[in-house]
Amino acid sequence: MDEVVYNIYGSQVTDYLEARNVLYRILPLPTTEENKSMDMALKILEEVHQFGIDRRTEPIIAIGGGVCLDIVGLAASLYRRRTPYIRVPTTLLSYIDASVGAKTGVNFANCKNKLGTYIAPVAAFLDRSFIQSIPRRHIANGLAEMLKMALMKHRGLFELLEVHGQFLLDSKFQSASVLENDRIDPASVSTRVAIETMLEELAPNLWEDDLDRLVDFGHLISPQLEMKVLPALLHGEAVNIDMAYMVYVSCEIGLLTEEEKFRIICCMMGLELPVWHQDFTFALVQKSLCDRLQHSGGLVRMPLPTGLGRAEIFNDTDEGSLFRAYEKWCDELSTGSPQ
Amino acid sequence: MDEVVYNIYGSQVTDYLEARNVLYRILPLPTTEENKSMDMALKILEEVHQFGIDRRTEPIIAIGGGVCLDIVGLAASLYRRRTPYIRVPTTLLSYIDASVGAKTGVNFANCKNKLGTYIAPVAAFLDRSFIQSIPRRHIANGLAEMLKMALMKHRGLFELLEVHGQFLLDSKFQSASVLENDRIDPASVSTRVAIETMLEELAPNLWEDDLDRLVDFGHLISPQLEMKVLPALLHGEAVNIDMAYMVYVSCEIGLLTEEEKFRIICCMMGLELPVWHQDFTFALVQKSLCDRLQHSGGLVRMPLPTGLGRAEIFNDTDEGSLFRAYEKWCDELSTGSPQ
Repeated sequence: MDEVVYNIYGSQVTDYLEARNVLYRILPLPTTEENKSMDMALKILEEVHQFGIDRRTEPIIAIGGGVCLDIVGLAASLYRRRTPYIRVPTTLLSYIDASVGAKTGVNFANCKNKLGTYIAPVAAFLDRSFIQSIPRRHIANGLAEMLKMALMKHRGLFELLEVHGQFLLDSKFQSASVLENDRIDPASVSTRVAIETMLEELAPNLWEDDLDRLVDFGHLISPQLEMKVLPALLHGEAVNIDMAYMVYVSCEIGLLTEEEKFRIICCMMGLELPVWHQDFTFALVQKSLCDRLQHSGGLVRMPLPTGLGRAEIFNDTDEGSLFRAYEKWCDELSTGSPQ
Repeated sequence: MDEVVYNIYGSQVTDYLEARNVLYRILPLPTTEENKSMDMALKILEEVHQFGIDRRTEPIIAIGGGVCLDIVGLAASLYRRRTPYIRVPTTLLSYIDASVGAKTGVNFANCKNKLGTYIAPVAAFLDRSFIQSIPRRHIANGLAEMLKMALMKHRGLFELLEVHGQFLLDSKFQSASVLENDRIDPASVSTRVAIETMLEELAPNLWEDDLDRLVDFGHLISPQLEMKVLPALLHGEAVNIDMAYMVYVSCEIGLLTEEEKFRIICCMMGLELPVWHQDFTFALVQKSLCDRLQHSGGLVRMPLPTGLGRAEIFNDTDEGSLFRAYEKWCDELSTGSPQ
């Protein structure tokens, strides 16, 4: 259990387990990006080993954000080659992102998630009430991954975020207790659509046999940016900066209109997400894409929006277009607002 | 590459790779049971990371005995969540045992293979000529796992080992260059049957969803014995001591005749394998079976021979029988020969 989550909800979790006579041990840990290492996984494994669990029937439960779910997932997948584990995401980002799919991981050699496994959790318990204690900046952080799915696959979700983004930030994804009859509940609808859309992409490709992944949008340059400026940017913030640049690339090569580009950047700002960063240099773009070539079977496999809520994978973007898009992106957004 | 193997075959492997213009890096390592740790896996991963490999198309090749294949397999399965790897077993034991199946692993908290993954290698290259440089004691070590498969599933293989065991030890599993027409080649037949029999057991149950495994014969008490006396006993030696005791259990509860028991023990001795050990105490039996209950979903799942080349899984062996078998085993074998 992440130690911050433990400080807020520890006693409730303890009460719950004791009322049901569960034999348990809670291990509160500082599951931050900086601590996301094999060392931390081994620390968890020592505790698991000392506690003693049945290999196939007693679960390890991860309660926390994405980093917590990833590290604990790795530990569970290594212990006796596989121990059941359950994910309880407590942030918006992990609720819609890390809770889905089969990935676990830790950072290694200063590279994000370089070591890990694929293992499906036996369950993910989704409880939006955790999100009420998440700081506003971290809600925006989660909204970035939601926007990613919207831009790639779901125009309706994009429009919902355009209209209700501020409300979602204000209400921290807690549903109103009484809803007017003809109103949708944006918190419930947006999280459901984001997760369903993510599942649609991940379920047929759980082990990443197919490296053409729309869910990689915003994740080509951002891992290196995130690690470079750690801990200045949250994961979703780095992803959003990457997406903002890619929207300029799409526009430069004629996949998006200026108006669509403008709407997307405005939506990002409405979600209180950064759309530019000084450390996102063109050299970083080149290095990241070069690394990606090596790790993706010789193709860059760049997901780009081809409209609002539509996207395709491109392998033939030329450096000239990437550079012109970069210059325009810097020109228009480095001052903090679209022109 | 195990460093002992490197000293003998390193230059041949280097010549082979250079003749084909392969970009490679060989990392010779002391892959002993004592070094079988996550630390060693991380050391390999640092080298892999520095060398830089394509995630899906460039393989990591493990050349060595079972410990080497297990550690490298774990490293390969963790790097970017899965990197292709190839097994090249160089000992008899790894040739017939670790080369088959999907397990990887390292020791942890003084427990054998406590951490690991399931991952299928993209290939296993089987070359019996490596075995000619294996010391006689290590050939016997491999014969123990072969005998296990014979006792569980293949009377013909058992009879081959009874008749040709000494010849196989003497000839180090190298086929005669000219065979008389009507003679079988024991080295070729025994390894083929052992691997086929192992595949028959493992293929339908690659991820161990079914915990009733005949291949666990000899592996209920031996892991704790092996770790307790490390490095006094080789893996196959510990397995054989466990199997010898289990043969007494089978006989005690009426599954084997005295004559069958005698033939099995004599065959073990012919293979120059230990059939008893002073540190294999009854307390160790009790502790190991108790641990197994916890790790096998509440059932002991004890494979026992029910004849020569036949076996079943038992969950109802009573402590009285286990103890009487233990006493008889000590009476008859602690002096070094069956009575």
